[in-house]
Amino acid sequence: MRGFASDNNASVHPKIMEALLKANEGHAIGYGGDIITERTQLLFKKVFGDEVETFFVYNGTGANVISIQALTNSFNAVVCACTAHINVDECGAPEKLSGCKLLPIETNNGKVTVEQIKQYMHGFGFEHHAQPKLISITQATELGTVYTIDEVKEIADYVHGLGLYLHMDGARLANAAAALNCSMADITFKAGVDVLSFGGTKNGLMFGEAVVFANAKLAENVKYIRKQSTQLHSKMRYTAAQFEALLTDDLWRENALHSNKMAKKLEEGIKQLKNVQLTQPVDSNGIFAIVPNDSIEKLQQEYFFYVWDENRSEVRWMTSFDTQEEDIEGFLEVLKREVG
Amino acid sequence: MRGFASDNNASVHPKIMEALLKANEGHAIGYGGDIITERTQLLFKKVFGDEVETFFVYNGTGANVISIQALTNSFNAVVCACTAHINVDECGAPEKLSGCKLLPIETNNGKVTVEQIKQYMHGFGFEHHAQPKLISITQATELGTVYTIDEVKEIADYVHGLGLYLHMDGARLANAAAALNCSMADITFKAGVDVLSFGGTKNGLMFGEAVVFANAKLAENVKYIRKQSTQLHSKMRYTAAQFEALLTDDLWRENALHSNKMAKKLEEGIKQLKNVQLTQPVDSNGIFAIVPNDSIEKLQQEYFFYVWDENRSEVRWMTSFDTQEEDIEGFLEVLKREVG
Amino acid sequence: MRGFASDNNASVHPKIMEALLKANEGHAIGYGGDIITERTQLLFKKVFGDEVETFFVYNGTGANVISIQALTNSFNAVVCACTAHINVDECGAPEKLSGCKLLPIETNNGKVTVEQIKQYMHGFGFEHHAQPKLISITQATELGTVYTIDEVKEIADYVHGLGLYLHMDGARLANAAAALNCSMADITFKAGVDVLSFGGTKNGLMFGEAVVFANAKLAENVKYIRKQSTQLHSKMRYTAAQFEALLTDDLWRENALHSNKMAKKLEEGIKQLKNVQLTQPVDSNGIFAIVPNDSIEKLQQEYFFYVWDENRSEVRWMTSFDTQEEDIEGFLEVLKREVG
Amino acid sequence: MRGFASDNNASVHPKIMEALLKANEGHAIGYGGDIITERTQLLFKKVFGDEVETFFVYNGTGANVISIQALTNSFNAVVCACTAHINVDECGAPEKLSGCKLLPIETNNGKVTVEQIKQYMHGFGFEHHAQPKLISITQATELGTVYTIDEVKEIADYVHGLGLYLHMDGARLANAAAALNCSMADITFKAGVDVLSFGGTKNGLMFGEAVVFANAKLAENVKYIRKQSTQLHSKMRYTAAQFEALLTDDLWRENALHSNKMAKKLEEGIKQLKNVQLTQPVDSNGIFAIVPNDSIEKLQQEYFFYVWDENRSEVRWMTSFDTQEEDIEGFLEVLKREVG
Repeated sequence: MRGFASDNNASVHPKIMEALLKANEGHAIGYGGDIITERTQLLFKKVFGDEVETFFVYNGTGANVISIQALTNSFNAVVCACTAHINVDECGAPEKLSGCKLLPIETNNGKVTVEQIKQYMHGFGFEHHAQPKLISITQATELGTVYTIDEVKEIADYVHGLGLYLHMDGARLANAAAALNCSMADITFKAGVDVLSFGGTKNGLMFGEAVVFANAKLAENVKYIRKQSTQLHSKMRYTAAQFEALLTDDLWRENALHSNKMAKKLEEGIKQLKNVQLTQPVDSNGIFAIVPNDSIEKLQQEYFFYVWDENRSEVRWMTSFDTQEEDIEGFLEVLKREVG
Repeated sequence: MRGFASDNNASVHPKIMEALLKANEGHAIGYGGDIITERTQLLFKKVFGDEVETFFVYNGTGANVISIQALTNSFNAVVCACTAHINVDECGAPEKLSGCKLLPIETNNGKVTVEQIKQYMHGFGFEHHAQPKLISITQATELGTVYTIDEVKEIADYVHGLGLYLHMDGARLANAAAALNCSMADITFKAGVDVLSFGGTKNGLMFGEAVVFANAKLAENVKYIRKQSTQLHSKMRYTAAQFEALLTDDLWRENALHSNKMAKKLEEGIKQLKNVQLTQPVDSNGIFAIVPNDSIEKLQQEYFFYVWDENRSEVRWMTSFDTQEEDIEGFLEVLKREVG
Repeated sequence: MRGFASDNNASVHPKIMEALLKANEGHAIGYGGDIITERTQLLFKKVFGDEVETFFVYNGTGANVISIQALTNSFNAVVCACTAHINVDECGAPEKLSGCKLLPIETNNGKVTVEQIKQYMHGFGFEHHAQPKLISITQATELGTVYTIDEVKEIADYVHGLGLYLHMDGARLANAAAALNCSMADITFKAGVDVLSFGGTKNGLMFGEAVVFANAKLAENVKYIRKQSTQLHSKMRYTAAQFEALLTDDLWRENALHSNKMAKKLEEGIKQLKNVQLTQPVDSNGIFAIVPNDSIEKLQQEYFFYVWDENRSEVRWMTSFDTQEEDIEGFLEVLKREVG
Repeated sequence: MRGFASDNNASVHPKIMEALLKANEGHAIGYGGDIITERTQLLFKKVFGDEVETFFVYNGTGANVISIQALTNSFNAVVCACTAHINVDECGAPEKLSGCKLLPIETNNGKVTVEQIKQYMHGFGFEHHAQPKLISITQATELGTVYTIDEVKEIADYVHGLGLYLHMDGARLANAAAALNCSMADITFKAGVDVLSFGGTKNGLMFGEAVVFANAKLAENVKYIRKQSTQLHSKMRYTAAQFEALLTDDLWRENALHSNKMAKKLEEGIKQLKNVQLTQPVDSNGIFAIVPNDSIEKLQQEYFFYVWDENRSEVRWMTSFDTQEEDIEGFLEVLKREVG
């Protein structure tokens, strides 16, 4: 059974699994000294730009806390949307591992603007205040919305003008790039991103994220930070092989396009229903909607998903690379029947 | 090519790979809410005892720092062998994540004794000293030696008598149990271990370790600690499935017995060589030996391995589940030729 | 010259200085093993209740981070007003030392209500969220407002009902108790506070705060936490002696009453001025007001004070135990002249 | 009564107390913005060199952890003598606040040599090992011994050659400089020290240490680190005023010379006793000796002191600026009577 709980409820894409099987030959030097890792790091340079430096890690929280640690001291502050994964879904890992304070921005759609960032851009040099050093934005956001290239550029320019850095939590970067019909470089390093958490798990990998730095200088301490943050995989070839497959023949885009398309299909169906109100634009593969409270349990029995905001009776439906047209159709049937 | 660098240079065991393929069906609740995880946690109770509580993580450093955090406060100290992985091979992750001080014990064979532990058992209640709370032993040790059940019991009894806890870093627990011809429960919880880092990666998994607590009380905060320590796998079924295969039909023992046997075979061959001196008893799957310094590079060109102690010209050869008789024979040939 | 910048710009009260001179006789056991410390800890029991346990520290940030560490784990969250000292004026010390996330509540007057706390009271048991464990309120608040006893009780009852703790940052507790005309026990432990940062520095001490726990159980690890947090004074008698003087003959109340009275006098004078708008009720010894932006610099040249909110042209004037009637009159003259 | 427990059992020197009284006039800007702090920072430049940057803190543990944090990242290691205060007497504060691993060197006399440091100077660039970045030496050592200027220079040169830094824990720097009959600059920054914890409390202050950096570049983040480490005194003038007095008319040297002289007098007396064996050279103001175990309690009843090593029946006697000739004579009488 396939539900809409999360794109990490999905399985592993067959081509990723195939890459794992293929990597499973003989011995390989551990911790990234193998040929697959070397090859895949070069592939990242092709995709994201020659200057980038890539470090493979296990998961998104790991990628985010390494990004933060690499570009901050413990007396710094990190500005992010109140809805950011680093702010609400990592059990305080950013604070604990980096020592930094998180400064949340209220937002209705998961995106932050330069205007909103400005509220925290003061007190520089004042030792009583945690010193802002990093802005973290999520692309696509936790609410399924997507920053345009210009929006990212505007934030990057502003942030760099103050001597700060820009982090992008790209757990669903592929979905954003697919939605924008641009390259992943366009929406990241070409737009001014300094460090990227590039997600694999939510786009068909078994596990694995990559921390990608705009240049080697920013990355100089990262190998130690990764190790000390418990994110260094000994049998690294199995992480790298998955990313190699993901970046080969644009599998990342294929998966993301499909996932986005399924979300659009669901959105269209929902628009026909009078008792379901969409609460966010459907820019990528997440759909947020208000449904009658008493219908939620019944719906969940047939297609599993999570309630997003109990008070508002708002739910979240995520599509993924393996969502089928029939899943959407089936779910719309159930919605019609139970909610109308 | 297969070398002797580390058991984490080995590939993934075919049965583990098969389990991964089998797990790759449809959707599953993330973060451990799936049926495979549930089943595998029960299997751990069968293998280690009904009272144990099991948490799957990505790697050994993760398992160790979660174990430490679960049983200490930041003002505590952790006593371990100076050769312990937590002391020398985790880039300070234990100190950073737990805040604890590590108190190293000098040891020639990787094992610690009650007598040695006693040197640190003072200053209780004295606020100037980090308060000892946890003893960590490695089984099999980083030097390939193995604690007997009685040795573990003696340490556990002593430690518990002082109100302290016993952690076992069991990255190679399977090799130890295979060597002792006992169950894994006998050498851990039945002998008094409070928390175990149970290694999978070095015994044929792609990735994955388990943190196993003697009882639920000790484990009450662990789910938060795991998450905050960046060690929670979203697609947990793929970690659990590997452990399920490892514990099924005693695959863990089969792999470990083979690996140990290969080490023994290598040891026997080495004993015929006059220019190679073993420096540790070969209790499990690691062989430590002094070889002529000028031969090392030539040997490494044919079978990769690491120098353990440059000053002494001491090297380490690890065997693994996939080491073949022909690898041993081939390597002994090279040794004979290059070293004599 | 005396200004209105902060009550920590004030000098040391003569009786405190006298106590320091008196304590300066011969040798005394360090780290609190002396007779003055013993005597003063007993005095705290008389003032705050027989069950309390008191630990002297250097400063307010120290007192707060020790309070937090004593009652939380690193995966917990601390709820406080967005204006709280722990949130904005400690350079991230709470996050760094405790590992906890701070969850700020928007507030116009520095006080938080049960209704506002409720927004964060969810996700218990959900490992992705930092688990709320401590509510921190400031009394008197950073905006000079004061919680009534009933308001504290209501928060305490609510918080305890959920198994959480209540911390009070009492950097200006004396001012609050003086304003409420109650004992310091009434507004703290009798009202349900679990741990108190009791301020001395802002009420006439040279340095020194006390961390006071409702009972010994809550305080069991605090001596280690204090030491590890760098807050253990070796020549403790000199911290204790100051507190002994402060609690003797209600010097704390005398100082606070005077300071509050001076604030009231300033408030009354200001009410006669048409170009100065008070922005907060003057409950204790802080006055917040909007003044014409172009007058600020001129005012500061004669009586030093800080701008609170540049955007609003809001300033803060603090009175202290050594503020004189003539200071108020002189400042009002200047205000009249420069602002009108 | 005056004992020999510690130089922090001593009182506050009359000239320090006088400086405190003199500083107690009117209002002063907090946190170091006052004129006394400014003046005293300049005085430090006169004493230690024009390039130094000075930060006042509360205590020695605070000074040490700030020094460490300023010059390391959390993945670094700090090498020190096993007897170092940072290693055994700070309850793990260095590990907790810096995240660094401490690498202890076995030593019989509290001093470390380049040869001993070398054991840890490997594994640079190897991400599994905490990376050595700082060597910390104590002057005078915790065992009362003193490094010569040449010894410090040799360590500094070696350490700098590897790109590492040298920290000096100078809790008793004055005693060392007095013993060496050199300036404090000679034995610190002129000899290659990068950061110094300069002790005041053990040489007549009520409280207060200074963290002194060789140059502004090394100190660039220190104001934030000091604040986040809870070591920023709001009424800073009272810390600064004490240091101003200590550095005026060489009061520091006068106190230290006296204290050292008292130790020498005690040493001479002891040499006449056949049942007391000195265990360390008496270079400064600490005396270590083995006395008959059954006499210890009786001695302590008349002159308080601490047992250093119970197993060896070794005790420590510290003299201080306020030790009187009669104290030494009286104690020698008791020693003669009780020990012989």
